[in-house]
Amino acid sequence: MFGLTILGNNSALPAHGRHPTAQVLSFGQHTVLIDCGEGTQIQMAALKVKRSRIHHIFISHLHGDHYFGLPGLINSMALMGRTDPLNLYGPPELMPILQLQFNAAHTQLPFELAFTPIYQAGMLVETPKFTVECFAVQHRIACWGYLFTECKFKRKLNHEAAIAAGIPTTFFGRLQHGEDYISAAGELISNASVTFANTPARSYAYCADTIFDTSLCTKLQGVNLLYHEATYLSHLEERAKARFHSTAAQAATIAKMAGVKKLLIGHFSSKYAELDQFLQEAQAVFPQTDLALEGVTYRVI
Amino acid sequence: MFGLTILGNNSALPAHGRHPTAQVLSFGQHTVLIDCGEGTQIQMAALKVKRSRIHHIFISHLHGDHYFGLPGLINSMALMGRTDPLNLYGPPELMPILQLQFNAAHTQLPFELAFTPIYQAGMLVETPKFTVECFAVQHRIACWGYLFTECKFKRKLNHEAAIAAGIPTTFFGRLQHGEDYISAAGELISNASVTFANTPARSYAYCADTIFDTSLCTKLQGVNLLYHEATYLSHLEERAKARFHSTAAQAATIAKMAGVKKLLIGHFSSKYAELDQFLQEAQAVFPQTDLALEGVTYRVI
Repeated sequence: MFGLTILGNNSALPAHGRHPTAQVLSFGQHTVLIDCGEGTQIQMAALKVKRSRIHHIFISHLHGDHYFGLPGLINSMALMGRTDPLNLYGPPELMPILQLQFNAAHTQLPFELAFTPIYQAGMLVETPKFTVECFAVQHRIACWGYLFTECKFKRKLNHEAAIAAGIPTTFFGRLQHGEDYISAAGELISNASVTFANTPARSYAYCADTIFDTSLCTKLQGVNLLYHEATYLSHLEERAKARFHSTAAQAATIAKMAGVKKLLIGHFSSKYAELDQFLQEAQAVFPQTDLALEGVTYRVI
Repeated sequence: MFGLTILGNNSALPAHGRHPTAQVLSFGQHTVLIDCGEGTQIQMAALKVKRSRIHHIFISHLHGDHYFGLPGLINSMALMGRTDPLNLYGPPELMPILQLQFNAAHTQLPFELAFTPIYQAGMLVETPKFTVECFAVQHRIACWGYLFTECKFKRKLNHEAAIAAGIPTTFFGRLQHGEDYISAAGELISNASVTFANTPARSYAYCADTIFDTSLCTKLQGVNLLYHEATYLSHLEERAKARFHSTAAQAATIAKMAGVKKLLIGHFSSKYAELDQFLQEAQAVFPQTDLALEGVTYRVI
């Protein structure tokens, strides 16, 4: 299952039982954490998200509501005896902050914390299951969006047809990559006769925190699921602009312009106890919008 | 009311719905925060402890479960427009850690954060309502205990008698300090005839985290309420010693030797889902023991 679980959907000031930003994205058994506001590890425990499954953490920017939960999470991983490496990505200043805290506590991590400081947009991670690219978003301080794309074979194997055609199983991987097969007798078996067209690879894009910026749409074109911050409603559009945030209508406009399949909005200001109006405002522009609700898993389809 | 409210009673790894260490001590309208583990501000919101009431914060040591909630709390105070100064006390390395985080976020606090680095035992705070002293406890890294004592006048005013004796109200403060009054006519009115003996000032001592150390007893002699960590039960006494922690029986032994009125134990290891045995083990040594339970306020009497 390719799905996104929301751990926190509030902006900086925790309120109304909502938590600061954190999300986990699962590609089957592979789980990545996106941002890590204060209390993320406590939310993980409450929602039964296993810390041990996380091998990649992506931090968008160094406002506290997006990373103050990180030192505690890393400490807990250490206390639980983790030995698997942990890959961390974010602004360059992140590692010195963590290091100062580790030094003060005389902490020696029992696992490798591999930090990749982000200086420019580009590909960050390529695994057999997924890739991750970062792109700049416009906020008050340096801030990165992330695009997660699953990796798929070009073609799906028609197992029965491939066996019937006498193709050895050792060649099946090459069939999935689109190759034709030539038998020992020199007979060509076309790839199309033993495979099916595959569905396109699905993708998830994360944009928080950001001012309304239509130049993002190129990067977001056609993604299956877009998370875009919506700190305010339209009545506070000026405030949103002044603080480099967006409104629900603006998030929906980006989704519409980029032709995404589905939009999730979050990072709600603590000004708002109720969230209904966020949904109404966004759906008026882009009907395929959902609120990012804590504890809910949204499938990327 | 002089009372202590527990916000978190667990040791480093949050578990079983328990949170890392944080407490608020109230002297009437004056509130101080003692340690500030991750999620403290969220616990405060849940328990309706007002952030704005807090003017003093004391951090025992720089293991994360005792201060990782501090940057988030300070940020929230800033976002809420606080202008009152905030007084912070703790190990010297604390301020550079906070400063690095503020710098990364381009944070400008709208209030004065007055930090007092602690280098040695002694008096830290003297207000008209209470005093705070720190003393060293033995842990793996530098760690401070705190002794909070309310300020009281030497004598309680017998208002009726003082008025009847013709003493001007402007002299009442001096009566509370124990002075006799001499009238314009030269008549001496003894202090004892217009005042009552006052009850002794009450005190609260906080000892976390610490190895079992009987030398603490001098400092703790006769306090009204002692909080002493009890990370483990006696079956893990060796582990407690190796990690510079204490068992429930050891905490109770300290309470007994110091002749305190009441003991609270906390900082329970996440190994233990249930806490009953902590209470049994401690009460066998010192019956006036309670578990430090989250959300509960313990009166200092």
